[in-house]
Amino acid sequence: MPHPPIVILTDFGEADPFVAIMKGVIAQISPRAQQIDLTHQVDPGDIQRGALLLWQAYSHFPEASVFLTVIDPGVGTDRKAICLEAHDRIFIGPDNGIFSYLTSPESKAWQLTNTRYQYHAQSATFHGRDIFAPAAAHAAAGIKGPEFGSQVSDLVQLPRPTLKQQGEFLVGEVLTHDRFGNVLTSLGRFNKTSSGILKFNAWLGSIPHFEIAASDLQVILPGGEKLPLINTFADVKKNSCAAVVGSTGLIEIVSNQASAAEILGLKRGERLRIRLANKGSSFQSP
Amino acid sequence: MPHPPIVILTDFGEADPFVAIMKGVIAQISPRAQQIDLTHQVDPGDIQRGALLLWQAYSHFPEASVFLTVIDPGVGTDRKAICLEAHDRIFIGPDNGIFSYLTSPESKAWQLTNTRYQYHAQSATFHGRDIFAPAAAHAAAGIKGPEFGSQVSDLVQLPRPTLKQQGEFLVGEVLTHDRFGNVLTSLGRFNKTSSGILKFNAWLGSIPHFEIAASDLQVILPGGEKLPLINTFADVKKNSCAAVVGSTGLIEIVSNQASAAEILGLKRGERLRIRLANKGSSFQSP
Amino acid sequence: MPHPPIVILTDFGEADPFVAIMKGVIAQISPRAQQIDLTHQVDPGDIQRGALLLWQAYSHFPEASVFLTVIDPGVGTDRKAICLEAHDRIFIGPDNGIFSYLTSPESKAWQLTNTRYQYHAQSATFHGRDIFAPAAAHAAAGIKGPEFGSQVSDLVQLPRPTLKQQGEFLVGEVLTHDRFGNVLTSLGRFNKTSSGILKFNAWLGSIPHFEIAASDLQVILPGGEKLPLINTFADVKKNSCAAVVGSTGLIEIVSNQASAAEILGLKRGERLRIRLANKGSSFQSP
Repeated sequence: MPHPPIVILTDFGEADPFVAIMKGVIAQISPRAQQIDLTHQVDPGDIQRGALLLWQAYSHFPEASVFLTVIDPGVGTDRKAICLEAHDRIFIGPDNGIFSYLTSPESKAWQLTNTRYQYHAQSATFHGRDIFAPAAAHAAAGIKGPEFGSQVSDLVQLPRPTLKQQGEFLVGEVLTHDRFGNVLTSLGRFNKTSSGILKFNAWLGSIPHFEIAASDLQVILPGGEKLPLINTFADVKKNSCAAVVGSTGLIEIVSNQASAAEILGLKRGERLRIRLANKGSSFQSP
Repeated sequence: MPHPPIVILTDFGEADPFVAIMKGVIAQISPRAQQIDLTHQVDPGDIQRGALLLWQAYSHFPEASVFLTVIDPGVGTDRKAICLEAHDRIFIGPDNGIFSYLTSPESKAWQLTNTRYQYHAQSATFHGRDIFAPAAAHAAAGIKGPEFGSQVSDLVQLPRPTLKQQGEFLVGEVLTHDRFGNVLTSLGRFNKTSSGILKFNAWLGSIPHFEIAASDLQVILPGGEKLPLINTFADVKKNSCAAVVGSTGLIEIVSNQASAAEILGLKRGERLRIRLANKGSSFQSP
Repeated sequence: MPHPPIVILTDFGEADPFVAIMKGVIAQISPRAQQIDLTHQVDPGDIQRGALLLWQAYSHFPEASVFLTVIDPGVGTDRKAICLEAHDRIFIGPDNGIFSYLTSPESKAWQLTNTRYQYHAQSATFHGRDIFAPAAAHAAAGIKGPEFGSQVSDLVQLPRPTLKQQGEFLVGEVLTHDRFGNVLTSLGRFNKTSSGILKFNAWLGSIPHFEIAASDLQVILPGGEKLPLINTFADVKKNSCAAVVGSTGLIEIVSNQASAAEILGLKRGERLRIRLANKGSSFQSP
């Protein structure tokens, strides 16, 4: 069996030697592990973006994959360094909220304190090299959580993005947008069925399941404008925007070969709503 | 034998999780395949640039290499998803012209319709994840074209770049420029011989072979300025430009530690000419 | 044993096909070698930055690693192409100063003239593809320096960054800054001890060893401002800057979630000083 891949997420950019140095440390410890970049272009210190990227990506990697995550503005302080086991995968990084969307009652975490699994060099400014990369390499080589250190509970949690039911509305927020200007929202997950019915299963919080006809779903922007749900980019009218069920099951606001983020000026955190009490919806307003 | 590499070309950029998600899907199916990035920085939807990049790169990879190509503005529409066998290599992507410079009478293509080789998740907006990456991974693992679906002919073709003979001139156009400001043209291919004679062998169309002395070759810019052919960057006079036979055999317009694209303001599609009826040329004007 | 990794450093950027083409050539020759990017975002022709990146990174890769280094403004001229053995690792690239910080009395270099280890294609503008990548792949597959060509001495050397003792001062300069705006200086290396004493061991030149208490060390900026030495980023006061012993052992000027490079406007080559004749220092001014 090949080693599980080590998937690397940082805010280091690609112009400096830091990512390569971590890969060199990994190559010393676990030379057969495939190393895959998630991205290194997270804005410096943007833990929330990092948490979202991990949530978007993790399930598409093989079980036992190791995620090495170094977005770490508190490096060298007393924030903990941890190994998290969740969703049959292993996550290595600082305990600063980066794993907020991955933890569950079944997940377990351990501190990375065993110096046996740390690098011979030690600095107060580059734990990616000295602590996290060696831990990821050892985890890929089979070292288990309890061998790294003592168990930790109460991991740091980021504030959760808005996703709530409010009267006859499902209320969410803008999470981020991608290179194409597609705006990712917290509204979801929706699962398309072949009959044109969308099944809702909240990815955050505990909103009851419901169903809604795709043809009834409209996303209401902060200013009141309503966007219809369409199937794919090419269905959007020129210079217009619309909503799609994106590849994560979350609603995205998109345009056709144009940037919806620019056209609408939507910013992270802005509120968006879906009216639930439409005809064809099995949702009951409270 | 190691698996052939999977070479990945997209317009996804590197800040979003999309490339990594495709690599995760591949790692699930074909964990031993080496994954190599061609580039992900193609402008969104720039199929012509993608087609050119594939043509520039493919022959330098081992036979049986698999090229996973996702520049796909028509994702989710009825444009076909295909597997192309050409030049002893395998190309996976949308049928939107991206393979225009690779097809030949010997090449064959099949549709990617067999759901057995698709991802368990299915979306209308991310066929890179759901259809193309799994197909590339299966192709690298030995699945052949006919197992993916029925054969396709008449693939979508981009308009061909200009390369024609016009009286005593060879007429071409600007294709693109690189990071250094070197301007790649459609004029070629030229093959340098040790005697200072260049042999012409058209990479597009059916212009007869000819030979020309390197010392006679001049590239005529849209405004009439003539650039001599030199051997390498260091032979260009300071603040000047000149022509070289580039590493692809196509003529490039270059400067010396400066950007010829900026100095000359050359844009994609602009016409360039070479006079053929020079002394020393074996070319006969018609 | 897996092959040693091939670590690739260029000024090619990632938008063009050049890095991928080199990887394809390597995959033809040494398909099992892991290929790791150091960076490709060096400014075109910035040999000094390349030399520094190699020095920062090399020791963190396994012994026998091969470094393929193509920052080569003199491509096609009579500058030599070489294979350098130094520090139990192998470095392939042009002899233009890129290896300035790696050579030592123990290192050896050979010219890459044996056409048996060159690519079938030959150009005057892309020796990365035709000479350096094949040499790196063959080196990773076990070919030794003398098989490439005749031995070379007197490699081209860049001017050394300033690091000297001047009266009671250690004088250095700004080398570069990273994505976070941390300013790397030539002042070092310093090795932290648990007792709060820093041991100095010059990374350049022949300044005598000395010790200094961390609490006594101050970096004096060009304008005379003095920055204290702190442990890590979080110890810097808001909107202020301070000095740290960075992960390389060189002094860095940093801020806290802000760019010290921007705040202080420090440029490459600017002089910085440390006063050595402090109380607690074992240094004797001459």
